[in-house]
Amino acid sequence: MKVNGTPYRTIWSTADNTAVEIIDQTKLPHVFTIVRLENMRDAERAIKDMQVRGAPLIGVTGAYGVALSMRHHASDAALKATCDKLLMARPTAVNLRWGIERMRAFLAPLRESERAATAWQEAARIADEDVAINASIGRHGSEIIRAIHEKKKSTVNILTHCNAGWLATVDWGTALAPIYKAFDAGIPLHVWVDETRPRNQGASLTAWELGQHGVPHTVIADNTGGHLMQHGMVDMVIVGTDRVTARGDVCNKIGTYLKELAALDNGVPFYVALPTPTIDWTLQDGVKEIPIEERTPEEVTHISGLCDDGQVRAVRLTPQGSRAANYGFDVTPARLVTGLITERGVVKANAEAMRVLMEKEAA
Amino acid sequence: MKVNGTPYRTIWSTADNTAVEIIDQTKLPHVFTIVRLENMRDAERAIKDMQVRGAPLIGVTGAYGVALSMRHHASDAALKATCDKLLMARPTAVNLRWGIERMRAFLAPLRESERAATAWQEAARIADEDVAINASIGRHGSEIIRAIHEKKKSTVNILTHCNAGWLATVDWGTALAPIYKAFDAGIPLHVWVDETRPRNQGASLTAWELGQHGVPHTVIADNTGGHLMQHGMVDMVIVGTDRVTARGDVCNKIGTYLKELAALDNGVPFYVALPTPTIDWTLQDGVKEIPIEERTPEEVTHISGLCDDGQVRAVRLTPQGSRAANYGFDVTPARLVTGLITERGVVKANAEAMRVLMEKEAA
Repeated sequence: MKVNGTPYRTIWSTADNTAVEIIDQTKLPHVFTIVRLENMRDAERAIKDMQVRGAPLIGVTGAYGVALSMRHHASDAALKATCDKLLMARPTAVNLRWGIERMRAFLAPLRESERAATAWQEAARIADEDVAINASIGRHGSEIIRAIHEKKKSTVNILTHCNAGWLATVDWGTALAPIYKAFDAGIPLHVWVDETRPRNQGASLTAWELGQHGVPHTVIADNTGGHLMQHGMVDMVIVGTDRVTARGDVCNKIGTYLKELAALDNGVPFYVALPTPTIDWTLQDGVKEIPIEERTPEEVTHISGLCDDGQVRAVRLTPQGSRAANYGFDVTPARLVTGLITERGVVKANAEAMRVLMEKEAA
Repeated sequence: MKVNGTPYRTIWSTADNTAVEIIDQTKLPHVFTIVRLENMRDAERAIKDMQVRGAPLIGVTGAYGVALSMRHHASDAALKATCDKLLMARPTAVNLRWGIERMRAFLAPLRESERAATAWQEAARIADEDVAINASIGRHGSEIIRAIHEKKKSTVNILTHCNAGWLATVDWGTALAPIYKAFDAGIPLHVWVDETRPRNQGASLTAWELGQHGVPHTVIADNTGGHLMQHGMVDMVIVGTDRVTARGDVCNKIGTYLKELAALDNGVPFYVALPTPTIDWTLQDGVKEIPIEERTPEEVTHISGLCDDGQVRAVRLTPQGSRAANYGFDVTPARLVTGLITERGVVKANAEAMRVLMEKEAA
């Protein structure tokens, strides 16, 4: 999507195919910096330091990390060492493992001399596949926005939580893809951006990317959505997800469940946007079966931002001695979800509908 | 309640009755400072600069402001000038008006020579009445906590939102009064403290006062309560309120409604603690009839905290150019409220029950 009027992806190959470039997301929203990755070590650092974040983007960065390494050393031993090393950059990232293992399986049978060039093509293919999936989610989701607009005949107000935008993927995003597609098609819309404490991905990343692309939006405290829905100021909610169970329970950034309760109480449709590989067919009851990560309490006790003097600093919010807890995600039961927006179409959040969906082709 | 082991009120007369002292709440939770108010101008500044905040405390500070002024000038003209000036310190604060008008009505019929001494007594009486009302709310509410403990036989987990603690009143608080009474009675309990964006009164004030009094507590992001309730980690919710309608709709800090939805969805009892004068008998439908104040967007875009170098600084959280909206309150429909804890007892949130309650004596 656009930054300062220029279209970008979050990761791209240089014209001569010798390096990749990324947006340093740790500096957003206050500074827009492009970082060049020339070797495996650069890719490793970008993943570890979270200059890239979001499951799909981490996976693609891992794949390009393998490709960068193959340009220098393409022996079987080098391939193994590269993959093993890159996996350790974020050991719990499922997409990182997926991207690297796909590269390993693809490259292993090849001759050493072929590996550098084909690795580059394969990494680019993984990136393009992500873009295609998200564009498809965007097309399906934008039809829902269009239908609301045709009925309402005025600006469609959409609430989103956290960042499931193009910054978390290679392009388009998941939850924001329908918004970009609808906006680009000229449908008048406005986005309520949940700040999304802790970590503030809404206030920093979602607000930044919507603003850069020119999409009208307003940042709100996470506490605000219920009030807006009570007063008819939200026409639909779209969020992303980290994991959906086989029966349609949705695991997403902490606080998603509270918004879905408010949507239900006020008759506001609530959609979850996801690529179908996000569905974990081995799980049923999300509340009981999905373990919720507890992250460092410093994300609650401290926050970073831009000071008047142009420095980014962390400040302490809580008194010394007060304990804090930081649960990263919550689970929204399927009964509260209006529908799942996938690359294969929009579907109800229940086992039968989801099974039928998977029998279709992506479109 | 206690600070560093010593019992405090938020406002008190010096031993020689020549001045009052307050805790400078703008410095909390990072610094504990006592400020001495010697004349009307000091009281005016304390109110205007929000060194005192919370409706009951502002009212009492206004009353003491009148009393301080009477020590220096007690003519009819001085009484009128004092009251008019103090009212302007926070023109929209209902309790400030109430406290000052009570002083005016009390002092006006008196001789000039009697005014200084009796004004002091009357201000002290207003303060003591606030303490008595809150202590009574605490006694009634602590019985609910006791009953949960008797059934559960282990630590009672209570979630609260915003600051309705002793810092907002003269002592005890409203929502926190039952917690302090139960804690002082030896009932094992633990409080989940919602950070309460924007303004963060939970992370700063509630966490500070609970910590100083020794009450076990954990600060959480406002997004977290639903997850905790899904997992049986909350036994009850207690919040304060700014206004309750005749049928029991509750206006309180933005985000309260979301927590009540989660409480209902998970069978967690949800109580609202209030002095009965908080009930506005002229209103019925809170969502439709209570206007919700929009505050400055800077409370969303910026936040203050303690830097490593010991300085308190504001940092910017959102990108330049992103709009923010800041709704201060929301309204929770009476149907979601388990009960109202008042100085007259605990009552269901409906018109008939509330009417019957008002026929009782405070106890």
